[in-house]
Order: sequence, then C-alpha cells, then structure tokens
Amino acid sequence: MPQYQPPVRDTRFILDSVIGLDRYANLPGFAAASPDVVEAVLVEGGKFVAEVLFPLNQSGDAEGCTRHADGSVTTPAGFKDAYRQFVESGWGTLSAPEQFGGQGMPHVISTAFQEFMISSNMAFAMYPGLTHGAIAALLVKGTPEQQARYVPKMVSGEWGGTMNLTEPQCGTDLGLIRTRAEPQPGGSYAITGTKIFISSGEHDLTDNIIHLVLAKTPGAPDSSKGISLFVVPKFLVNDDGSLGTRNAVSCGSIEHKMGIHANSTCVMNYDGATGWLVGEEMKGLAAMFIMMNAARLGVGLQGLAVGEVAFQNAVQYARDRRQGRALTGAKEPQEKADPLFVHPDVRRMLMEAKAWTEGLRALCLWGALQVDLEDAAATEEERQLAADLIGLLTPVIKGIGTDAGYRIATDSQQVYGGHGYIAEWGMEQYVRDARISMIYEGTNGVQAMDLVGRKLALNGGRAVQAFFKLVAEECAAAKADEAAADFAARLEKALGEMQAATMWFMANGMKDPNQVGAGAYSYMQLTGIVAVGLMWLRMIRAAAAGLAATPDDAFLEAKLVTARFYAERIMPDAGALRRKIEGGADSVMALEPDQFVAA
Amino acid sequence: MPQYQPPVRDTRFILDSVIGLDRYANLPGFAAASPDVVEAVLVEGGKFVAEVLFPLNQSGDAEGCTRHADGSVTTPAGFKDAYRQFVESGWGTLSAPEQFGGQGMPHVISTAFQEFMISSNMAFAMYPGLTHGAIAALLVKGTPEQQARYVPKMVSGEWGGTMNLTEPQCGTDLGLIRTRAEPQPGGSYAITGTKIFISSGEHDLTDNIIHLVLAKTPGAPDSSKGISLFVVPKFLVNDDGSLGTRNAVSCGSIEHKMGIHANSTCVMNYDGATGWLVGEEMKGLAAMFIMMNAARLGVGLQGLAVGEVAFQNAVQYARDRRQGRALTGAKEPQEKADPLFVHPDVRRMLMEAKAWTEGLRALCLWGALQVDLEDAAATEEERQLAADLIGLLTPVIKGIGTDAGYRIATDSQQVYGGHGYIAEWGMEQYVRDARISMIYEGTNGVQAMDLVGRKLALNGGRAVQAFFKLVAEECAAAKADEAAADFAARLEKALGEMQAATMWFMANGMKDPNQVGAGAYSYMQLTGIVAVGLMWLRMIRAAAAGLAATPDDAFLEAKLVTARFYAERIMPDAGALRRKIEGGADSVMALEPDQFVAA
Repeated sequence: MPQYQPPVRDTRFILDSVIGLDRYANLPGFAAASPDVVEAVLVEGGKFVAEVLFPLNQSGDAEGCTRHADGSVTTPAGFKDAYRQFVESGWGTLSAPEQFGGQGMPHVISTAFQEFMISSNMAFAMYPGLTHGAIAALLVKGTPEQQARYVPKMVSGEWGGTMNLTEPQCGTDLGLIRTRAEPQPGGSYAITGTKIFISSGEHDLTDNIIHLVLAKTPGAPDSSKGISLFVVPKFLVNDDGSLGTRNAVSCGSIEHKMGIHANSTCVMNYDGATGWLVGEEMKGLAAMFIMMNAARLGVGLQGLAVGEVAFQNAVQYARDRRQGRALTGAKEPQEKADPLFVHPDVRRMLMEAKAWTEGLRALCLWGALQVDLEDAAATEEERQLAADLIGLLTPVIKGIGTDAGYRIATDSQQVYGGHGYIAEWGMEQYVRDARISMIYEGTNGVQAMDLVGRKLALNGGRAVQAFFKLVAEECAAAKADEAAADFAARLEKALGEMQAATMWFMANGMKDPNQVGAGAYSYMQLTGIVAVGLMWLRMIRAAAAGLAATPDDAFLEAKLVTARFYAERIMPDAGALRRKIEGGADSVMALEPDQFVAA
Repeated sequence: MPQYQPPVRDTRFILDSVIGLDRYANLPGFAAASPDVVEAVLVEGGKFVAEVLFPLNQSGDAEGCTRHADGSVTTPAGFKDAYRQFVESGWGTLSAPEQFGGQGMPHVISTAFQEFMISSNMAFAMYPGLTHGAIAALLVKGTPEQQARYVPKMVSGEWGGTMNLTEPQCGTDLGLIRTRAEPQPGGSYAITGTKIFISSGEHDLTDNIIHLVLAKTPGAPDSSKGISLFVVPKFLVNDDGSLGTRNAVSCGSIEHKMGIHANSTCVMNYDGATGWLVGEEMKGLAAMFIMMNAARLGVGLQGLAVGEVAFQNAVQYARDRRQGRALTGAKEPQEKADPLFVHPDVRRMLMEAKAWTEGLRALCLWGALQVDLEDAAATEEERQLAADLIGLLTPVIKGIGTDAGYRIATDSQQVYGGHGYIAEWGMEQYVRDARISMIYEGTNGVQAMDLVGRKLALNGGRAVQAFFKLVAEECAAAKADEAAADFAARLEKALGEMQAATMWFMANGMKDPNQVGAGAYSYMQLTGIVAVGLMWLRMIRAAAAGLAATPDDAFLEAKLVTARFYAERIMPDAGALRRKIEGGADSVMALEPDQFVAA
C-alpha cells in the first residue's frame, strides 16, 4: 500500500549545487563520477530499488526470517531472487576499490544510492550494508592475502559479511568479551563463544558469509585493550578460491524483534571455529572502529531514509484523505470535506519532516564527502580538516539522524490517524524499523558521550574549533546575500549557544566529568541543529543562485520556505538546549537508585 | 520478565498532601473515601492488578484476540478468568453511582486505581474502560428506563460497553457519518452501517455488550449537527432484565494493530440492528462528547500508566546491568563493570521519566478531582471554576500525557540497549501499546486544536484567565517559601511565555486562524509544561512541609531533587515553544502540496 519515489531531484541539487561535486573532479574516483554517470546511478539505481526491493518491504516484515532445524536460515519470499538481481546489476559495487572489482566511485555517490535502497527496504539493505563494514575492516587491517581471498567476492556480493561484537553480558563495554581465540598450529585460531544480535548472521542469500569476530587470545588483559579481531568464514576458502570445509560457526536462534523482521538477527555459536587474526593481536578495538565508524554513518543514513519514505506517504495521505474543513473556510466546497493538507497542524508535521529529511540528506552526503576527502584530498591540510570534521560529526549524524528518523516515522504515522496504527497501511512498520537505528552501533547516548567525552577534546579541541570556524565564516559570508542574511544571523545565534555550551563544559568538566556527561545528549542535539543549519544555509544560497537563473522553479522556492521553517520552528531549540546543559549534573546525579521508583 | 509495583506511596502523597483530600470530606462521596479506605483501595487494588492482570500482559500481546468463523471473538488465554475475578472483586465499581450498584467514591480515587490497572495491562484495562465511557453517556443522556435496563449490569461488569463513532471515511470529522437509523414501529430504530476501530467491539468476557452508536436519522443534515446517539445491545434485554434476541450487529474482522493486541479492535457491521435513541435526535454530538471527555482523560492516564511501568523496568535494568565505568572512576571496582546507573545520560533519561510521570500523576489526579468538583463542589463558583479548568486542560492532559508516555516508553526501551528491541524483554510492547494513545479519542493534533480553537476562546477566555490567575497566585505565594521560591520564579517565567503566546494568538488569530492553528501543538506543549509545573510547585511545598515533620525522608527529598530537575531540564523548553508559536503560519502554510516531496 505505501509508495516510494527516490528523491532524485533533491539529491542532484545537493550533489551539484550544494556540495558542488565538480569542484573535486581532479581527485581520484571523482573523475569517474561525471554528471551523466551520477544521473544514471540515481535514476537507474532508484528505479531498481523502487521496483525490486520496495515491493518486498511489507511482505518481508510480515513473513520474517525462518531458522530451520539444521541451523540454516531462509529469508522471506522474494529476497533471494531480489538479491541475485542486486548482485548481477552491480549496485553494491559503486564505491568499492577497482582492484577488488568495484567501480571506484566516491562514497558520496554510493551514499546517495544507499539512501534510496534503505528507504525501499531497510531490512534488505542491511545484508549488503553489513558486508561493506566487513570489507572496510579487511581493506585497512587485513593482510594482502586475506584481502585477495575474501574481498573480491564480498565486493561482488557473492559472499556476505558480518560484525560479531556483542555477547549476552557485553554490549557497549567490549572489555567484557568472553569469546576465546586459541592459537592453532599453522597460524589460525580456534574461536569459541556466543555472539548475539548478529545482523545477517546466517541466511540463504550468499554462498558464504565472512564473519569478523572480536575475541580474546590467551592471557590477554580483561579490558578492551585485550581484544583482537578475527576473520571466520562460514565455509573455509581454499587457495584457489573454492569453498572448503563448513566451519564450526552456526546460528543458534533468530531473535524476535520489534522490527526489521526481514533481516536475520542471529545468536551465533562459535564452537572452536577456525579463524585468522585481522591486524595485530590485541589491537582489535582499532580495527573494530573502522567498521563501526562506517556503520555509524550508515545507521544515521537509515534514520534519514526511513524518515523519507514515511514522510512521502504521509504527504500522499494528507492529499488523499478528506476530513474537516480549512480554518479559513472550505477549500474544496464541492467535496464533503477538505484534504488533511489544509490543516495547519498536519502541515507542521509535514514541514518538520521535510526540513529534517532534506537537511539530513545534505549532511549525510556532505559527511560521505568528508570520508572521501579524508583519503583523497589534494593537500594534507584538507585531509586533516575532513578527518577532523567527520570524526566530530559521525556521532552527531548517527544520533540526530536516527532520532529524527524515528520522530518523522512517528509523525508520519500520526498523519494517518487510526489507520496509521493498522499494519496493512504500512506506517507502523516504519516506526518499528526506525527504532533500532537509535540503539545499534552504539546507542544514541553512547554517541553523545563519544562526542563530548572523546571527540571534543581530541587534539586540543582542534575539530570543534574547525567546525566553529567553518560555520562562523559561512554565516559571515552569507550576510551579504539578501536571501540568506536573516537565516545566517539566526544560525550565528545558534552557533553562539553551542560555543557557550562548549565553554561551560570546559569550565565545569575538569573538576567533575559528570557535568559534561549530564549535558551530552543536549549537546549532541545542539550540534545537530547547527550542523543541519549550516546545510540549510548552503541550500538557501544554492537555491537563490538557481532562482536567479530559473525564476519560479517551484523546487527551489520550496527550499527557501523550508529553510525559513527550519529557522523559525527548529532553531529556537538551540537556546533551550544550552540552558539544559548549563543545568549541570547536580539534579541528574543526586538521587540514590532506591529513590527512583516511588512505589 | 518485566516487573511492576503500584506507586502507592506517590499516590498517597499526592492525594493526602498535594490535593489534600481531607479538605473535601464534606462533599458527597468524599466522606466514603476516608484515609483507611483509600489506603485499602490502593494497596489491595494494586495487589490485584499486579498479581492477576500484569502476568497476562506479555502473553496477551503475543497471543492477541481471535475471531472465529461465526463472528465470535475470544480474548487471550487467562483474560476471561481474570475478568471474572475483576468483576467479583468489584474493582470496576469504585466511583460508579450507588443507585446503580457502584461504591459512589470520587473519581479521583478510581483514577488512582485505573492508573495501576493500565500499568498492569493496558489492553485488559480497555475492556472496563470503554464500558465506563458508555455508562457516562447513559447516565447523562439516557432515559430512566434505559438507565435501569443497562447501567447496573454495566457497572457490575457483567456487561461491557463500547463507543461506535469511526467509519472508514469518517474519523475526526463526524459530519461524514453514513450509518443510518430508520425509525421502526414502537419507537426503536433500525441501525445499518459499518463502524471501524471499535475497541472491545466483540469478545468473550461479558454476557452482553451495550454499543453506543452514532448514526443519522432520515433527512438529518449532512454535518455533525445531523448525528444522533443510539444504544444498540448485542443481545436485546427483556423487561425482566434477562437476555433476549441476538441483535443484528456483528464483528466483521479484527484489525491487525501495532500494539494493544489483547484488546479486540473490531470492524462492526450493523445490519438493521435494533437500537434506541439516547438523548434527543440530532444532539448526538453533545452526548458523544460526554463519553469523549471522560475517555480523553482516561487516555491521558494511559500515557502516564504505560510510561510508569516502562520507567520502573528501566530503573531496575539500570541497577542490574553492568557496562562500563563511572566517569568519575569505578564505583564498584570489585566487579568487572559498574551498573548502568552510574552513567549520567542513563540518569538523564530516568530523571526525565520520573519528572514527567510524577508530575502527570499529580495532574491526572488533580484533573479527576475537578471532574468531581464540577458535580459536587459546595458553591456554584467552585463548580464553574472546576468545570472551566478541566475543560481547558482535558485536551492538554490527553495530548501531553500520551506524548510523554510514548517518549518515556521509548527512553526506557533505550536504557535496555539492544535487549530493548527484543520482544521477550517486554519493553518494545510498551512502546507499541503507548503509541495508540496519541492517536485515538482524537489525535493529539486534534487535542491541540480543541485547546486553541475552542477552549481558549470559550466564555471570553474565562478558563484560561482562571488558569493564569491560579498559577500566578500560587507562584506569588510560594516565593515566601524558601524551598519553593526558585522554582516559583522559574514557573512564573514559563507562565509569562504562555501568556505572551496567548496574546500573540489574540493579536494574529482574528485575521488569520491558521496563525493560531500553526502554533496549536506548541501551545499545548507549553500549557502542559506550566500545568505540570504547577503540580511540581505544589509537590515541593508538600514535600518541604513533610520534611519539616520527618527529616531525611528519602522519598520527600527525591521530590525536591526531581522538581529541580524539572525546572532545569524541562521548563527551558517554554521559551523555545513561545518562539515557535511566534514564528506563525507563513512558512507552515506557504508550500503547494506538489512542493513537498522533492523527488
């Protein structure tokens, strides 16, 4: 029943006019991303996901995955065939390195495609999504031999990949890992332990699954400094690339989850499975963070993507459903009632969704560009700036992106009234699916702590100072621009709130780190308002420039209105967030556990 | 796996020290609610729901209701027996009139009990809950003969009751109703039409179900002014009270919903069913609002109640689950990790839940008291004040109560990390169950419009002026009170924001009602912050007085800390909400529908 149109126009606008891809044409990979190639990726890729993956979204949720008595897992009807088409069409290889069979395009292009894929079918998109994280770890930390053995077939999609971190007693705190890796003759390890919440842990889409597993070697310290990363294939891979023995890793059960039913979330049992060290022993945390940082940006994108498809459907429902009359008098008196669209509070929800999704799209694509520049920028200075900015904003994109996705899915469901609560309309699935993004790859509270506890202070605060400078300079420059001046002044004010909050942390955090921790979440939200605000400032200027060339372009005019909405209806929260931060930790930390429940 | 303890201590505190029940002992019904009776209701009633209803909450969700080929519906295993115990123990009769077999206690007492019941099992609580709404309509609008025929067995719980408003094409806009009522010889009507989303529409808990149905009589105008209310029993009732013919009303199907699976939400088909007019012809809207206003307060209570049980479990999980270390250094170095409780962002979520649930509990009980005073206060002036205040705040209690319930359920789930997403842990059910409360009995957007479009202007703004006066006077009085002075000053500031927003509406709403509509939701939230703030002001003063008598009472000390949290972490939103309201309607209403989706 729901519908989905890939937002090609908006994505083109961001890539062409906001990010300005053509400015980077001299960099490796970007040359391949010529305007016609980008157009083809967006249009044809969008068509593929909308026609092949989207129709399986509701049925996949209803059916879920099935584990059989022999431990094998089948995905919902249609998934296997759709995955075959996905592999054959090569949509998974866009930004993978050419030497391993990829197309070598920038991440900013594959990120645009991934948004469309997740909007079409989040549970499906997780199968190749997790593989990308595993590839990233192997590319940075794997030996050339490991890369040659595993990566090409993971890039092509013939094989899947997973990340095995969590154990029953061990979530965020990876020092608590109990899975053991015993050295074996010949340089391999025997891996033994239980991992839980393993997305795509076992399924029928690929011939092999390459598990990346955190475990502890004998005598390793009982902390996160003692963990190592291992590659543990479901089937061992012979030197000629053919599949060998079935490894001693199996799916013990599938979790019954609130949503993403079509992704198999597995309990994985390792019973002396053969694995090989990836990178150095006891340096598993660093290797894991390579996967994790890529995954966090991908999860932020999930927030945007699920929010987008929910929003699109709410817009359509608000146009179709007639109920009540406009406050200013009947808009369509020939009908028995006006469309929901006339009601200002329905509009408010749709405008909030529009302001957040379009702002987040710009931020996610801008973030992906920083990942590209971190590798490929022409100068060390540019590479460092990109690395600093994306390091600072990765937890923000994850945290505010997924919070917004859930809020938008909830508001979009709200537009449907009672029908939104009924499964067949498809809206409640978006809420259930969006919910997980706030939890996995580090809860949003963990993201907030990463931001204030690690990223803010790194290199003497270099990244946040660079961010302040960037926003301040663009605000200053925009003030001469009639279309952007008012917005720039408001953004400058929000930036001032963020700077004041940062100062407050500096003044209070040294003597009591809880003063920072208590304000971490508000600070993440405040940073998000400023970062998305910067994207809206850029979109205003790009839209105004575009309107000078093509007056009356309704799409560009909508950008100016939506930016104004963002300024008037979302940025006012910046001041409140600062005041909450300045409330400090005292009332947050004062109570004893026994004092919480007043029963 | 989840647990629940009825918050008896907090409820006692509110009834005794905040509301001061003893001040009303001279009023009808209140005399019966002596402190020992209240204590017995809370303790024994709480025990009943925790021991009998709570254990059926997860199993009821997993099993759901079943419709059989003959149209009959069975509730989940255990529900029928639990309902029998509920009827036998008389917990449903607390505030029903004595003349119909009730105990005649004030609503404020039954509301306290209902919170516990909903926390234990929201889907179960809806069966008697809907019956109460139907009773309310019959008591006000029914003939003495109708009351005698139906009400006693509805009060006892032997029969159930429903509200039949919604049709596929007709939700909020009741003018669109198509169900027809044709006069029959003998004064009855033949009711024909389809109703959807009928909670408890058909089930196996009671011998009979008394449906209250909105329908149109021949020639009635095609608007909400043309609707009439009918009583349509599942089984006709003979003059001697015995059951007669099966009426032509049946359950066509059960909806597949996001949550409240254990409540049967039915499509009801009326095929010339025999019904009788309740109240005057074409005055059905007024009769419906009697049910609706009671239901809205009950739904606001659902927000609190589901939030409370989710919160309690999050507190327990935060105590039990060990992950990471306190920022200030290991709290329990002998263990491998500290409990989640040490982490300030976990605390933040728990404190937000505590501040909202305790504040909403006070507001819901205070609201129930106004319902009592509206009937029973000693003077006309007091009756009018109570009616004005509860009329104004009913949509606020519904809207902010249910928004808070969903937010608290979501945050409580978040405390569980990945486990929160897994069905067996029980937390995701609270999110799914809480979600419906924001939608039914008028979406929260409809509540906001009721507040600003109807309640604000009623009687020349008499109600909101009375509310301003009440808050201002209590703030002024509290300033002399050392424990309350700071909070009172902050509440006065929030009140000032609300007054400014009200002025802005007056200045801008006349020439363009969309200016009011666009700010309606923010205004509802702002009013909620002030109203719950007033409750916290009263709780501070009551706690400070209590501490003077019993120093070091940890419960009372927690009240002061939580009030401070409310002031520092929640009230700052008041200013942002005012600024959003003053943003007006322009950016909200400017876009054409085609401009929303940028595809």
